[in-house]
Amino acid sequence: MRATAKAHTNIALIKYWGKRDEQLITPMNNSLSLTLDGFYTTTTVEFHEDRKEDTFILDEEQIHGVAYQRVTDYLDFIRIYADKPNLYASVNSINAVPTAAGFASSASGFAALAAAATRALDLTVSDKELSRLTRQGSGSACRSIYGGFAEWEQGSLADGSDSYAVPIAPANHWDIRVAAVVLSATMKDVSSREGMKRTVDTSVFYPGWVKHIPTDLKNIKAAIDARDFELVGQIAEANCLKMHATTLGANPPFTYWHDTTMAVMQTVQAMRKSGIPAYFTIDAGPNVKVLYLPEHEEIVQKTLIETSGVTDVILSRPGQGISYI
Amino acid sequence: MRATAKAHTNIALIKYWGKRDEQLITPMNNSLSLTLDGFYTTTTVEFHEDRKEDTFILDEEQIHGVAYQRVTDYLDFIRIYADKPNLYASVNSINAVPTAAGFASSASGFAALAAAATRALDLTVSDKELSRLTRQGSGSACRSIYGGFAEWEQGSLADGSDSYAVPIAPANHWDIRVAAVVLSATMKDVSSREGMKRTVDTSVFYPGWVKHIPTDLKNIKAAIDARDFELVGQIAEANCLKMHATTLGANPPFTYWHDTTMAVMQTVQAMRKSGIPAYFTIDAGPNVKVLYLPEHEEIVQKTLIETSGVTDVILSRPGQGISYI
Repeated sequence: MRATAKAHTNIALIKYWGKRDEQLITPMNNSLSLTLDGFYTTTTVEFHEDRKEDTFILDEEQIHGVAYQRVTDYLDFIRIYADKPNLYASVNSINAVPTAAGFASSASGFAALAAAATRALDLTVSDKELSRLTRQGSGSACRSIYGGFAEWEQGSLADGSDSYAVPIAPANHWDIRVAAVVLSATMKDVSSREGMKRTVDTSVFYPGWVKHIPTDLKNIKAAIDARDFELVGQIAEANCLKMHATTLGANPPFTYWHDTTMAVMQTVQAMRKSGIPAYFTIDAGPNVKVLYLPEHEEIVQKTLIETSGVTDVILSRPGQGISYI
Repeated sequence: MRATAKAHTNIALIKYWGKRDEQLITPMNNSLSLTLDGFYTTTTVEFHEDRKEDTFILDEEQIHGVAYQRVTDYLDFIRIYADKPNLYASVNSINAVPTAAGFASSASGFAALAAAATRALDLTVSDKELSRLTRQGSGSACRSIYGGFAEWEQGSLADGSDSYAVPIAPANHWDIRVAAVVLSATMKDVSSREGMKRTVDTSVFYPGWVKHIPTDLKNIKAAIDARDFELVGQIAEANCLKMHATTLGANPPFTYWHDTTMAVMQTVQAMRKSGIPAYFTIDAGPNVKVLYLPEHEEIVQKTLIETSGVTDVILSRPGQGISYI
């Protein structure tokens, strides 16, 4: 009753922004991501017949409070799913996702947890089923089941059973790179969960966001298929700008951008003007991720690190899906 | 056949953003502004029976090219209106609108030109009629006919005859202040005319913008009437954010903000957190205007000038409408 799984985080090129059902974690729109080699979580889950509670160790530290609660709540969900209500687990995770990089470690974290927990219980689950189960831990984590490009299909059923990710193209389809740009000031006033909810509930621009997603998705999938980097970059950057625009139309309005976020956006646009194809995308926080091609790695890294307010630039390649160790 | 008029610029609290008719300069939505004491244009127009062309002197310099063309085209419009096709004019303007402050000098410029030209031709025009005539020189200029708060009613007639500004509250209704924050880098890639057009034609958020204007207008007029500064500030700031959000949903997307713009926005929000009611608004460019109350003038000025990237802060009070000298 013991298994170890490794899962990578992913960066959305078409953003998940808004829940249809807060409890089931089903989204208002499909999203599309690239799994990243450089950032991952390795988790061992062992179930014990003689325990009365779960334990959670993260990076060699015993975890209590909110983070523990999220893990044990998720294990409750898995216990019900497996019809093993009396088995408690010890969970041991190592995060290779620098918090400062502004990646949600919940994506790799819940993908690894779902994979290790189901495997430890000897459940036979398909990738789709694992993605569906992972979704209920953390929405965007459901895309991390697959390597390369994956699409989270929002589904339409009330019970969420048709809301899971599917593979679009494997990691070896195309070597495009992502630089995670770490900023000096990264405080955020509004959590992504709260920001998403406020936007869905109040933004005058939310209908415009939802309406345009199918077009962005259709176009980016064709561009990925054709390995058209400029087109992928343009669509991803425009989609990110649209997501962030919705927060400006919320009541009260808010933004995840800092002055330093804007400085990096300007740097990326200036690189393009000088002939280097590079494009940015930004999640619900101030940090910026930059898409580029392998042949421009040196100049992109150098230009980003020299931008005012940037403290680190961490590079990544397309990553693999779930693996078991 | 000679007259001199003085007109002040105005800052929109509910933005004019999008033309219904490019030729007539009628807008897609009503807008509301505050006329500002600190920034104005004084223009003398003299018509001559023996001339064959107009001349235009601005700040003691003879003007040719695009700026001259805009003035002489506008005088053509006035000549047709007055049924005096053969009278040409000498126009002499002095701008007390520092270009760097990021105010469109076209607002005070065309209001003063329309007033001086009609007066020089001895035409009797009502304020509404003068506003309507001014609109065809520069849209937002039509609000500068009045002191204090004015609303530009978009109108609905195809010939634009019901599209003009009306007074909402005079300058002495309420002494609220505006700081024009001048930034070191103020280049803009997209003109306001082009930005407006691209947004109307392509932004997925434009319908959301137009739809919400009546609510913003109703609320801000009630707040101006009640002299509720925080409410006026909140509505104006939120309206500005919505306007700028629409550019992020255009195709291709664009923004008027720089990193320094964002830094000033953060400074203003930080002032609020520390108990100083101050609110920002931004037109189609990187500069920021900050609304505040007289009792906070010193701290607001000091805090803004200390913000990174700010080179000057120019203060203004509510200003008067058109006057003749």
